[in-house]
Formats: sequence, C-alpha cells, structure tokens
Amino acid sequence: MIEVKIPLKITLFGEHAVVYGEPAIAATISEKMKIRIIPNDKMILKSNSLSIKGIKVNLDEMKLESEETGKILSYILSTINYFKDEIGKQKNALIEIESPVEPSVGLGTSAAVVVGTVAGYSKLLGLDLEKEEIAKISYKIEKSVQGGLGSRMDTYTTALGGIMYFPPKEGYEKINKKLNITAGYIRRIATTAETLKRVKSIREKDEDLFNQIISTIGKIVEKAKKAIYQENEEELGELMYINHGLLMALGVTLPPIDNLVSTAKTLGILGCKISGGGGGGSIICTKDERAKILLSTIGAKIIDSDIIDDGVTITEIN
Amino acid sequence: MIEVKIPLKITLFGEHAVVYGEPAIAATISEKMKIRIIPNDKMILKSNSLSIKGIKVNLDEMKLESEETGKILSYILSTINYFKDEIGKQKNALIEIESPVEPSVGLGTSAAVVVGTVAGYSKLLGLDLEKEEIAKISYKIEKSVQGGLGSRMDTYTTALGGIMYFPPKEGYEKINKKLNITAGYIRRIATTAETLKRVKSIREKDEDLFNQIISTIGKIVEKAKKAIYQENEEELGELMYINHGLLMALGVTLPPIDNLVSTAKTLGILGCKISGGGGGGSIICTKDERAKILLSTIGAKIIDSDIIDDGVTITEIN
Repeated sequence: MIEVKIPLKITLFGEHAVVYGEPAIAATISEKMKIRIIPNDKMILKSNSLSIKGIKVNLDEMKLESEETGKILSYILSTINYFKDEIGKQKNALIEIESPVEPSVGLGTSAAVVVGTVAGYSKLLGLDLEKEEIAKISYKIEKSVQGGLGSRMDTYTTALGGIMYFPPKEGYEKINKKLNITAGYIRRIATTAETLKRVKSIREKDEDLFNQIISTIGKIVEKAKKAIYQENEEELGELMYINHGLLMALGVTLPPIDNLVSTAKTLGILGCKISGGGGGGSIICTKDERAKILLSTIGAKIIDSDIIDDGVTITEIN
Repeated sequence: MIEVKIPLKITLFGEHAVVYGEPAIAATISEKMKIRIIPNDKMILKSNSLSIKGIKVNLDEMKLESEETGKILSYILSTINYFKDEIGKQKNALIEIESPVEPSVGLGTSAAVVVGTVAGYSKLLGLDLEKEEIAKISYKIEKSVQGGLGSRMDTYTTALGGIMYFPPKEGYEKINKKLNITAGYIRRIATTAETLKRVKSIREKDEDLFNQIISTIGKIVEKAKKAIYQENEEELGELMYINHGLLMALGVTLPPIDNLVSTAKTLGILGCKISGGGGGGSIICTKDERAKILLSTIGAKIIDSDIIDDGVTITEIN
C-alpha cells in the first residue's frame, strides 16, 4: 500500500489577479489530505470525506454524482490516462481519498487530489518522481481538465510546500520565512462559475478599470513578498485589508466575510482577508485569538493553519 | 427677517480621492437646512437642531461646547469677519440654524452652514450676491477655517444645486439628468481625524499603492459621469460597488456599512456605497425599497434623497 499525504494550501495574496498575469503568494498549511493507493483487481475510487463522502465508484462504469465528485473523478481518470499515454503502463488499484475539509473552499483540495494521485500512482507504477516533476505533471493534468485555464499556484504549492511566490508567467520562489496565520472557511454560497461570471462582467463592462484593479493587486503581492521577507507583520496585515477591499470591488466577496474583515480591522487585528476564489470559502487573518472568535460568529470552521514547509510525502507500507 | 434654505448634498463618487486631485460627483437632495438671520442688538447664534441642539451662544463671550459646535461657530465668525474685512460692514443679528440631520454624517452640513450664513448675512448687509459668488466666498471661508484643506465640492454643490461634476483643479459641470437614490445615515463611529489618519497611514506606508487606488477612483468618477449622462443605472450601480470596495481598501468604511453594501449586492440591488468621509456617516444606493429595509436593519435614519436642482435660496420676510 502506498500512502500519500498532501498539505492543503491558503492563498495569501493575489487570487483572481493571478489568472490575469499578476503574481501571487500561497503557502501550505498543516491540514493534510491523505490518498491511499492499494493494488486491486479493479480500478476503484473510494472516499469517506465530507462531500465526496461514502462514494464508491467503479471507474469502468463511471457515474458522476455531483459537480465536485465529477471533477475529482476527472482528475483521477486523467492521471491514469496520462501515465498510460506517456509510459504505456497501467495498474489497477483502490484509490482512497481522505480530506479534512470540504472541496471548493479555496484550500487547494483539487490540486491536492491531482498531486496526491500523481505521486501515489506513479509510485505504484514503479516510478520515482521528484517533487518538482510531480508538480509539473499535476499542473499539466489540472490544466487539461479545466480546459486550458488555471494557474500553477495550487499544484506547485501543494507538491513542493512552504511559502511560495509565483512571479507572472513562469517559475516560483520559495520564501524561507515564518508566518503565523489564523484561518477558517465557510461553505461556498456562490459557485465558482457564478463568481467568475461576476468578475468577467466587470471586466467586460469596464476593462480599463478592471485592469487597474488587477494591477493594483499585483503591486500588493510584490509588497507583501517584501513584508514577508522583512517579517513585517503590521505591513503584511495592512496589505491583507487592502487586498480584501479590492476583491470586494471585483465582487467576489460575501456579506458575512466583508463584515468579519471590517470588524477585525475595527478590533485592531493586524490583517484579514478572503482567501481563494471567493463566493464564500476561506478567510485568513494574521494569527490572533480574536480572529478565531470572529470566524466562529459567522459559523466558519477553524482550520489548522500553521504554515508548514514540506510538500507531498509518499510512504510505502507493506 | 431673512430666511435662507440650503439643500444638503450627497457625494455620489470620488470622496477622499477628490482631496488628492481626482474628480468627484456630488448632488443636492431634498433635505434642507434653514438659517434665519434676524436683526438684533447683539450677535447671537441659536440652534435647536440635533447635536447643536439648544445652544444659545453670545458670540462676544463665545464658549465652545463640542468639536462640532466649535466648527460651526468658527464658520459663522469667519463669515462675519470676512465681510467686515472685505466691505467694512457689520450688523448684529440673531442667527438661527435648523438642520434636519446631525452634523458630520457626510451630508455637507458644514458647507450648508457657511453657504447659508454667507447668503443670509450678505443680504442683511444689503448685498445682492449671485449664487456663484456665494459659492466662491463660502469655499474661501471653509478652506480658511479648515487650515487650507478641503475641496470646493461641498460649498459649490450646496450653493448652486443639482448634480455637479468637479474636474481636477478648477471649475465644475452641472449634469442636467435625472438620478434616483435611496440614502440614509448612521452616527459616525470614527471621527474625521481618525478616518483621515487611517488614509494617511496607508499613504505613508504604501504611497504608490495608495496613488494607484486613488487614481482608480478617479477613473470610476469619469465612468460614472458618462453613465449619468447615458442614464445607465446598471453601470452606475456597478461603479458604486467598485467605488465602495476601493474605499474599504483605504480603510474608511465600517462593519455595518460593509455588510449592508455586500448584502445589497447579493440581493440584486443595482448599486450601494458609503458616501462622504467615512467612519460611519452616509450610505447611498440606487433607488430601491429593499435598500430602505437594509438601511433600517443597521439603525440608519432614512433621508429624503430626491435629487433637486436648486441651490441656496434667500427669502426676505417682513
């Protein structure tokens, strides 16, 4: 049996803008997804976690239960097909996914599924891939499933681990600094499609305005990178509030989150913002006990958000 | 007796940015301040309105009761001194101020006091000033009381009336179009000084970022001007939401207002934003019954916000 652990991630700065060529910063947290790959006579996917709870799908007679489940199935099937096409190998297995959080809350669960399956399944096929290679293949697969869209941020961050800065276009820079975050998430109210539609509507109606907001977010990311290197938590917090306001301007926030962020500021918490794609989802603040209380008041689930340094890990259990 | 009626105003777009050289749009509403000037043997100021309620001050033995009262006294004394210095005339009078709203909620009550006193007191002195002249003198007085700061927006709007666009630097443009607004206000939680300090703090720490946000607000104002001319309420509403997000980024909004604006968007109300200096104060939305309900839920006082076309009016009652 192969057990893969993949850290979840938070987007620190630059969500949405990253899709339009701006930089972004993400980091892996202590919450981990587990994927077990057990040699089997049939190809079976099993999960007892949250909204992909209790499903057991025979991949040969695949049946899609929900948008989320469908997406996860697509990632796994695409991974299997990738290795069949690239190295001409296939082995049947029971793939078991155990996620500590619900999907689509901005914590990189999709990327974790791809990265974990690529890592575990390649091991099952006898390959010894470097983390960098796992990241590269996972990004390729995620992108193909999403129809050519998406950024390398999630797959590279969860595969490689740590605080990761992504410059526009290519490459990444690992920032070896400490960072303390309080985080939580609420179930999404708007779907990804609805959220992207809102952003697109502003882009279509007021393109120059949209571009200016996006480029301002890009500037925030560069400043935040500097602040992380300088361990300037106060500046970092200020930038979180500014980034949040711009995300509100783009229409991707929600009443309880705007209220929380605004209240956090009034209380003197250094920084808070929505994190990830929006329409609900994750909220991050500079580490603060009061932030946990605020998160609880809007019914958010607090997550274990210590920033950790490792990416994906693979263990063979015999 | 001379009775002066001065309309209050709302800032439609561009608050804060206007102080840094960007354009802005304001409009007079149907709520009016009344100032009565009655010849008298002493110079007396009287007001029964709200927070300048019940005061009766002998201007020769002036005593400041509060920051607000002090400001209003300064405006009136400066007006009296202006005419003494400029035309060498002074006449004692009972100056009675009746305001339908509290001061410092972003509705131009300060400007209304100056404009009304200039209009009424100049009449008492036998001068027949044009509205344009009243605006010019009022702006000069307001600026000198505020130590050289401030914009011409409030005094010119309340003196001249209507929807007024203020380009950077000089001049104004009256927009002869209809506009329907729902508005309300809450008591300010932060003082003007605190609010300006927040804005200043971002400006000092992140000047380029600050400038980019300010210039984005400037772009919103230009687009809003176009949308008003085109009577495109949908675009205007969208721009209100974007403007609000940028004001949140500048740190001048408050939890209940952020929550209200965000909820309004969720409900499908075309547009909502904070209006005026922030730290509490006014909220405007595109005209919508649901906006009135939202305003009530945060304890806001709904104001009579039909956009009216006249500015200051002077009546002599014998």
